[in-house]
Amino acid sequence: MNKYSPVRVGVAGVTGYAGLELLRLLMRHPHADVRLAMASGASESKRLPGLAKIWDAPVEPLDIDRLVSETDAVFLGLPDTLAAEIGPALADRGVRVFDLSGAFRLRDAGARHRWYPHSPSATAGIAYGLTEQRRLELAAARLVACPGCYPTAAVLALLPLVSSSLLEPGIIIDAKSGISGAGKTPSERTHFSESHDNISAYGVFGHRHAAEIEQELGVPVTFVPHLVPLNRGIFETIYARLRPGVDAAAVEGALGRAYAESPFVRLTGAEFPEIKHVAHTNFCDIGWRVDAPGGQLVMAVCIDNLVKGAAGQAIQNFNVMFGFEETVGLL
Amino acid sequence: MNKYSPVRVGVAGVTGYAGLELLRLLMRHPHADVRLAMASGASESKRLPGLAKIWDAPVEPLDIDRLVSETDAVFLGLPDTLAAEIGPALADRGVRVFDLSGAFRLRDAGARHRWYPHSPSATAGIAYGLTEQRRLELAAARLVACPGCYPTAAVLALLPLVSSSLLEPGIIIDAKSGISGAGKTPSERTHFSESHDNISAYGVFGHRHAAEIEQELGVPVTFVPHLVPLNRGIFETIYARLRPGVDAAAVEGALGRAYAESPFVRLTGAEFPEIKHVAHTNFCDIGWRVDAPGGQLVMAVCIDNLVKGAAGQAIQNFNVMFGFEETVGLL
Amino acid sequence: MNKYSPVRVGVAGVTGYAGLELLRLLMRHPHADVRLAMASGASESKRLPGLAKIWDAPVEPLDIDRLVSETDAVFLGLPDTLAAEIGPALADRGVRVFDLSGAFRLRDAGARHRWYPHSPSATAGIAYGLTEQRRLELAAARLVACPGCYPTAAVLALLPLVSSSLLEPGIIIDAKSGISGAGKTPSERTHFSESHDNISAYGVFGHRHAAEIEQELGVPVTFVPHLVPLNRGIFETIYARLRPGVDAAAVEGALGRAYAESPFVRLTGAEFPEIKHVAHTNFCDIGWRVDAPGGQLVMAVCIDNLVKGAAGQAIQNFNVMFGFEETVGLL
Amino acid sequence: MNKYSPVRVGVAGVTGYAGLELLRLLMRHPHADVRLAMASGASESKRLPGLAKIWDAPVEPLDIDRLVSETDAVFLGLPDTLAAEIGPALADRGVRVFDLSGAFRLRDAGARHRWYPHSPSATAGIAYGLTEQRRLELAAARLVACPGCYPTAAVLALLPLVSSSLLEPGIIIDAKSGISGAGKTPSERTHFSESHDNISAYGVFGHRHAAEIEQELGVPVTFVPHLVPLNRGIFETIYARLRPGVDAAAVEGALGRAYAESPFVRLTGAEFPEIKHVAHTNFCDIGWRVDAPGGQLVMAVCIDNLVKGAAGQAIQNFNVMFGFEETVGLL
Repeated sequence: MNKYSPVRVGVAGVTGYAGLELLRLLMRHPHADVRLAMASGASESKRLPGLAKIWDAPVEPLDIDRLVSETDAVFLGLPDTLAAEIGPALADRGVRVFDLSGAFRLRDAGARHRWYPHSPSATAGIAYGLTEQRRLELAAARLVACPGCYPTAAVLALLPLVSSSLLEPGIIIDAKSGISGAGKTPSERTHFSESHDNISAYGVFGHRHAAEIEQELGVPVTFVPHLVPLNRGIFETIYARLRPGVDAAAVEGALGRAYAESPFVRLTGAEFPEIKHVAHTNFCDIGWRVDAPGGQLVMAVCIDNLVKGAAGQAIQNFNVMFGFEETVGLL
Repeated sequence: MNKYSPVRVGVAGVTGYAGLELLRLLMRHPHADVRLAMASGASESKRLPGLAKIWDAPVEPLDIDRLVSETDAVFLGLPDTLAAEIGPALADRGVRVFDLSGAFRLRDAGARHRWYPHSPSATAGIAYGLTEQRRLELAAARLVACPGCYPTAAVLALLPLVSSSLLEPGIIIDAKSGISGAGKTPSERTHFSESHDNISAYGVFGHRHAAEIEQELGVPVTFVPHLVPLNRGIFETIYARLRPGVDAAAVEGALGRAYAESPFVRLTGAEFPEIKHVAHTNFCDIGWRVDAPGGQLVMAVCIDNLVKGAAGQAIQNFNVMFGFEETVGLL
Repeated sequence: MNKYSPVRVGVAGVTGYAGLELLRLLMRHPHADVRLAMASGASESKRLPGLAKIWDAPVEPLDIDRLVSETDAVFLGLPDTLAAEIGPALADRGVRVFDLSGAFRLRDAGARHRWYPHSPSATAGIAYGLTEQRRLELAAARLVACPGCYPTAAVLALLPLVSSSLLEPGIIIDAKSGISGAGKTPSERTHFSESHDNISAYGVFGHRHAAEIEQELGVPVTFVPHLVPLNRGIFETIYARLRPGVDAAAVEGALGRAYAESPFVRLTGAEFPEIKHVAHTNFCDIGWRVDAPGGQLVMAVCIDNLVKGAAGQAIQNFNVMFGFEETVGLL
Repeated sequence: MNKYSPVRVGVAGVTGYAGLELLRLLMRHPHADVRLAMASGASESKRLPGLAKIWDAPVEPLDIDRLVSETDAVFLGLPDTLAAEIGPALADRGVRVFDLSGAFRLRDAGARHRWYPHSPSATAGIAYGLTEQRRLELAAARLVACPGCYPTAAVLALLPLVSSSLLEPGIIIDAKSGISGAGKTPSERTHFSESHDNISAYGVFGHRHAAEIEQELGVPVTFVPHLVPLNRGIFETIYARLRPGVDAAAVEGALGRAYAESPFVRLTGAEFPEIKHVAHTNFCDIGWRVDAPGGQLVMAVCIDNLVKGAAGQAIQNFNVMFGFEETVGLL
């Protein structure tokens, strides 16, 4: 397969927010030929009104055999439990899988089953799809576990600093998320009249994305997510202390080296990023400031949770795996 | 009973948005002594976190006997079906009832059962509680059917003009409502990610509030409600043609005479009202303009759907019935 | 020039919301080679932080000579007065011009100068760029006056019905617009704390877009625009009466015939459109219902004011003029 | 003066958000007799449309002599510079002053002039009006410097813990504020289209409220404020480490003792507060959790910035100073 012959792709789990975004972006991708859009529980008559004249075919019931015979690559926007079952089945039959659920993200089996009870027992052949830090693995992977939205932002900001040993222990991540991150199922918390004009914290000391962030960074973090009244976007404010002798230039150097070749990471320095600049894009914007005397570092990171935090990053991984330019279909 | 001895009141159905607003406003009312807050399906342990230090007692299960023995007046914030059953039972046993549901609003039995299938068969002793136009009836009523939110705005604006025969047939009411009007039960339509950044129309040619408006005006209307992404407030834009010989001065005169003694109706003339000026208040603001050559009238009316359109108007009715100043507890 | 060699384009007036959207969309267009981004009053150092890694060149000062020598087509996102001056100057020197201002929209000189005092005295060679209804003119035009956002929605919905004589006189257009339609200059009305949680009407009987709608339809309309608290999107609810003998099938037939070959118009029938389905797209969604006994027609039309109502439609016109597929770069 | 004879009050600076809220609340206060509403730059004709039928008198030009002769107490909602001049002038002539600006908050002259260049040189007779912690001082004060909105929340949450020496150094305050906190003057940052659907940080390491927090706590803090797209309300997430041997019970004990007699502080324990429960109220809700093994404390505090963070707290101070019940007019 070369970059000029389109890859036949399918999207399984197309009715959630990430799945819809996947389908919308893939229909715009010049090297993806979308063959199937499926949903668990779909009947023949299910249509996607927002995608009329873009995707007019019906959403079809989930069917592994058809995915295997009609596609080369499948994107999964399914619940964890279903993804845990279908992902390996597809990969075993030769289809490349890009999974947006949490089922395959945690490598430690204990942690994985604690946070995702129905996740698989083994995870061989699986790449963790934080593109900027795993490009080499991606080409060889059969199944890509695309990162959670909060970890995407946190790990992109922190890993270059942690791996260069620039930070003292005691990292704090104060995350603010738009409400699409909570998914499409109505609930009291996501009812308009409850979440509009409101801010709430949740999952304090108990959010499964903390485990994922700690796995990738290799150090403990305090992670507190908040829901804020907007739809798309994550803003994480990160607090840490620089080790003695480390200064702002060292921070800038580590980030600059890490992302010199990354088209979707934008370093904004002391000008802090804002959600409006990343919404509906695959960019991750990172800014930082150091309070020189005390060595207090404050970073701010922004992504669109449905693009760089979900569908966009999955397509970025697809681009890397199939040898396309990393930005194809994503600018 | 005189105005200096507090009236013992109960609120039944306190967990919905109108019920919460009732309880909050009644706790501020100098002549109301709130004795009971009840909810259908409540258990002993139900608390209202937003009302801590205002109402710290538990929400109790619905209990007609207690309402009869411990209160003089009961406000009902219950679903139509339950209100249809409980309202008359309370009224028959001597408690004054202020009902916020739709069960008692339509006087024609056919229309009432079409739109509210479980509504009562008879409606004797019931006043329609659009305060400004029913003050005399309210003093004698046993049960007050508080108007719907859309009809409150539409009828206050239009009745003075219709009853003075100023308008041609063919009235159009384009209504925009905040989402609290849809109640507290989560649904796809009221899910934050679906309703934020969105506008939708619903119930075109089939909203039960149209029947209520037509009942009060005595003429047919075209009524189209829309959901807009804010929480509280209704804005209705009304289009009608003036009869030959009727001019803007006649419109102003009719409205001026109708509301000269009404402390909660504010006529803004050619300066159109805005929701921000009525939110969290019991005011109804009405503005209008006439395109002189064509006789086209455009009116705009604003209320807070949970106050003047629900809880506030119920208390305004309570004030009138018990002989208090109409504004007590509501400014 | 053929469709395989890119067209050299410039954007003049890139710092407003429509200009930014133009630049963003053109950078994604496979047949547009963006050479220049200019702004009136720009200095050399002006950057667009939201477009970093998409458009990293500085925004340059407005320079007609450079636009003439370095581009084949120019998009103008300038104020009316400036566009009125620059547009003809560019067109006279052989550059194709796509103007987003109001300076060239009104063909009647009196109306044009009433609403746009500094507009040009003559408008020869100018096409009104409502793509779906002017494709033939566009190929030959030197300057395209792209329609206003409100007229785009209103005329697309109404023209097929008016030109088939299906409607009685007395059309009412109740328009609800997101606040980006008011532009980028801060004002009291568009201050967050004033417009959030608010709805307001403005320009009643005096909005210049009414003149544009009436020009295109050839009949008078009552047009009332409202600001609602969202950023992008227009929702217009249209009220009219069908002529005797005209029924819903005739409405459907007229709309169906008008847009059978139009990839960006989606007819949703009795399922009314919603802004969420058109936001960030170039689609115009149109729904309608008829109250059969009375012949009352209610239509709803949705567009994204910055895409189909501005930048997207301008590019759609560019595609038609240069012989590209109408949808290129816009799906 | 006893509690049964109303206090004659004036509001100077009534056109900003805090001033409007002051006037609205004072008109509801049973022991306040509002005599004057003034604004700098007001002409005789200035009216407050949102307060029609509540306050129908015109807003008058600022006039110290009239304030002195016609009132006993004045609330100042003026810019810092103007408050710095007028506050002492009023206090010297025997009027009790409640100032909402920052001019008098910082006791250290160097800090005060750094952050508020036109603030007064001396601050004798001034009480810092964080009601819950200054009740005794308030009775005797001539001028009350009402705290900033961010410090109100931060100091109420932290002072009981800091003064009991429960916390290690290194307190982090991640503050999220609604946009009314930025005042009524339109700017690019507070333009609806810029702040809607956006989150931004500002004033990192350089916000003057940090100086105020540090003054009250007596320890350094890292303070990062963010603007989030809602109008009213502040949510502060506070991160600190407990000293060895300190546990969650000690935290609960310190907070419980501090606020046992405070009607407007609600301790929510491990159930974190939300803005929706404090909006439009004078409550300050405080929750906290401790990650036991590491001793990491996370607190969340919510207030309405215009009520407890401004107008409401000023009236609470007024109540204490004049011997009224602390809650009068505020529930």
